[in-house]
Amino acid sequence: MSTAIDYRLISTDDHIIEPAGLWDGRLEAKFQDLAPRVVVDGDMDYWEFDGERTPNIGLSVMAGRPYEEYTVAPVCFADMRKGCYDPKERLLDMDRDGVEVSVLFPGVPGMAGAGFSQIKDKPLALRCIETYNDWLSDTWCATDPNRFVGQMIVPLWDIDLAIKELHRGIGLGHKALSFPNAPESLDMPNIGDEHWDPLWDAVEEAGIPVSMHIASGSMRDSPLPLAVAGGTPSEVFVTVAPSSNFISVATLLFSGVLQRHPKLRFLSVEGGIGWLGYLIQRADEVWTKHRFWTKSVIKEKPSFYFKRQLYANFLDDAVGLTQRYHIGVENIMFEVDYPHSDTTFPNSQELVAKRFKDVPADETRLIVRDNAVKFFGLDL
Amino acid sequence: MSTAIDYRLISTDDHIIEPAGLWDGRLEAKFQDLAPRVVVDGDMDYWEFDGERTPNIGLSVMAGRPYEEYTVAPVCFADMRKGCYDPKERLLDMDRDGVEVSVLFPGVPGMAGAGFSQIKDKPLALRCIETYNDWLSDTWCATDPNRFVGQMIVPLWDIDLAIKELHRGIGLGHKALSFPNAPESLDMPNIGDEHWDPLWDAVEEAGIPVSMHIASGSMRDSPLPLAVAGGTPSEVFVTVAPSSNFISVATLLFSGVLQRHPKLRFLSVEGGIGWLGYLIQRADEVWTKHRFWTKSVIKEKPSFYFKRQLYANFLDDAVGLTQRYHIGVENIMFEVDYPHSDTTFPNSQELVAKRFKDVPADETRLIVRDNAVKFFGLDL
Repeated sequence: MSTAIDYRLISTDDHIIEPAGLWDGRLEAKFQDLAPRVVVDGDMDYWEFDGERTPNIGLSVMAGRPYEEYTVAPVCFADMRKGCYDPKERLLDMDRDGVEVSVLFPGVPGMAGAGFSQIKDKPLALRCIETYNDWLSDTWCATDPNRFVGQMIVPLWDIDLAIKELHRGIGLGHKALSFPNAPESLDMPNIGDEHWDPLWDAVEEAGIPVSMHIASGSMRDSPLPLAVAGGTPSEVFVTVAPSSNFISVATLLFSGVLQRHPKLRFLSVEGGIGWLGYLIQRADEVWTKHRFWTKSVIKEKPSFYFKRQLYANFLDDAVGLTQRYHIGVENIMFEVDYPHSDTTFPNSQELVAKRFKDVPADETRLIVRDNAVKFFGLDL
Repeated sequence: MSTAIDYRLISTDDHIIEPAGLWDGRLEAKFQDLAPRVVVDGDMDYWEFDGERTPNIGLSVMAGRPYEEYTVAPVCFADMRKGCYDPKERLLDMDRDGVEVSVLFPGVPGMAGAGFSQIKDKPLALRCIETYNDWLSDTWCATDPNRFVGQMIVPLWDIDLAIKELHRGIGLGHKALSFPNAPESLDMPNIGDEHWDPLWDAVEEAGIPVSMHIASGSMRDSPLPLAVAGGTPSEVFVTVAPSSNFISVATLLFSGVLQRHPKLRFLSVEGGIGWLGYLIQRADEVWTKHRFWTKSVIKEKPSFYFKRQLYANFLDDAVGLTQRYHIGVENIMFEVDYPHSDTTFPNSQELVAKRFKDVPADETRLIVRDNAVKFFGLDL
């Protein structure tokens, strides 16, 4: 059984709250005024882009706050913990939390860049995406390239441009691609569709993994619209949101994309794992009973592809840990989710010690550290 | 550990395939021609009602068929196993399967009667509902009132009429109410909304339970529309459909309906249980972290209300059984789902022996029999 953990954790899901000025001075004159920028109105800051003003929502920057202060109201930069937007301060918070490496998702662009891909001015969108990837490399990750894992975003509306930016991003040192968990919510082909095959060929050849964060498509990819339509309590949405990746994982399993691309690897991010043992079992049952009339395109049981190519992370999921043999000890990873409301910061080490007390030490190390080293190809 | 099971099972979810003629000769002249009736067109039968023709779909009548024959194509009565629509034949199939008691859901009216509640002609809808409840009592259940548990349906558009029909149905001997799992999908208030409180007062006073079958609202209550929109494989829908009750259970937990009605009991039907340990854990976590900004109406953790008032059934869920202590051994029940495609017929006894081999005998008996006796108030 696990005793005291004498090594640092790897968090496979944290979030950058982009600092004001990220896109400033980096774009050509014709785009510069149209790029995202922070405007101050009264005592609140807003990101202004594509005709809309968007504040940072409280729940996105709650790291270190007591639950009693949790809020959906906007929060200005001055009221945030500095680690939200300052990479040097972020490293200090990682030190406080016993975290060695942090895998990063964007905020303003959407967690997989979909916010940029959806605007009409595609040349502007492309330059905003390139600039984010540049800044992520030369500014945020450059602060400590061994402890920050940059995940690039790519233009989603043009597969050739996406491949070009993928190669450029790898050249910048990025170690993974952040891709929408539900592209169909963006009126694009679903994540298993052959439309994406040329991109997956390039990803496979590059040997990098793909992260698929919950709610990284549009809000339509979640049960929220139905819940809101029916006047359902907010807690229902918060409860259901993680397991919205259930559909994304099932789509990857049955679409044949993992069969067509045997080296492609996906990480389900912030979905938790407590429902995954059930999903894998259910998918195998459906394949066994229904593959004749559905004319299933996959030749092996879904669990075969899951074991080989799918991964999932979690913050605090005691139920999920009891199912680790149903899911695969080498297929699950820890995450901190700094600075969002569900974050385990600053108590990640204490939480791991508590939750893994009945898990053998070698399995614990795989889950909270070594699986991520292998998945992201880290050199620690 | 469980040894051979020397008692018969109780199936908490089976389906009536209504025989042609069910509504014939039971309605007043002005309604009779408008009531559902079977028409024959070529070599296929269809139910004709409210201007639409609907066949019985293959997947609804697959009991006893090899998986290779599973189909979504229509099936006529002559090609169905007689146990689908004939209660005497059904009893023989229950004998073959080692099932003592069967809890029944309707087909033509929708699994909670929503198909009738949605037509414009409400006087006709009411008479069709009353007639179904009459027939269920005087014909199907009358064949063996000790082995068939009738679940009534009620008019959903008028709460006073619903209460009136509830009382009438209880008088007919029905032991439970079948209610839509997602009334918001029918443009009605959600299942936890105060709108339904007068009905729940009556249900509580009567001491009967409420069954909440997956897909008993409209198809909009499932992830299907999104999946279909994105060209997702059919297997994804089949895989995801059971856990669509995730939202229904979360809504019951957070809406306060279980707090307002401490004796009200709901059964999540055909949802499986392998995701429930995770859901209960997640709901407690959300309540702990988010109840301040959401101004949660519930005073205890969600798990408190689940343990006291919520139940769930499953067919074949080995992963779920490993989580029985997280969910509650007294909160879960077995089901056969005869004659639908997922049915365990005719191998239910063998399946139970296999799946429960590591479960203590007393727990097995609770799950496959005694919990249902208590829940439905059976006198065996």
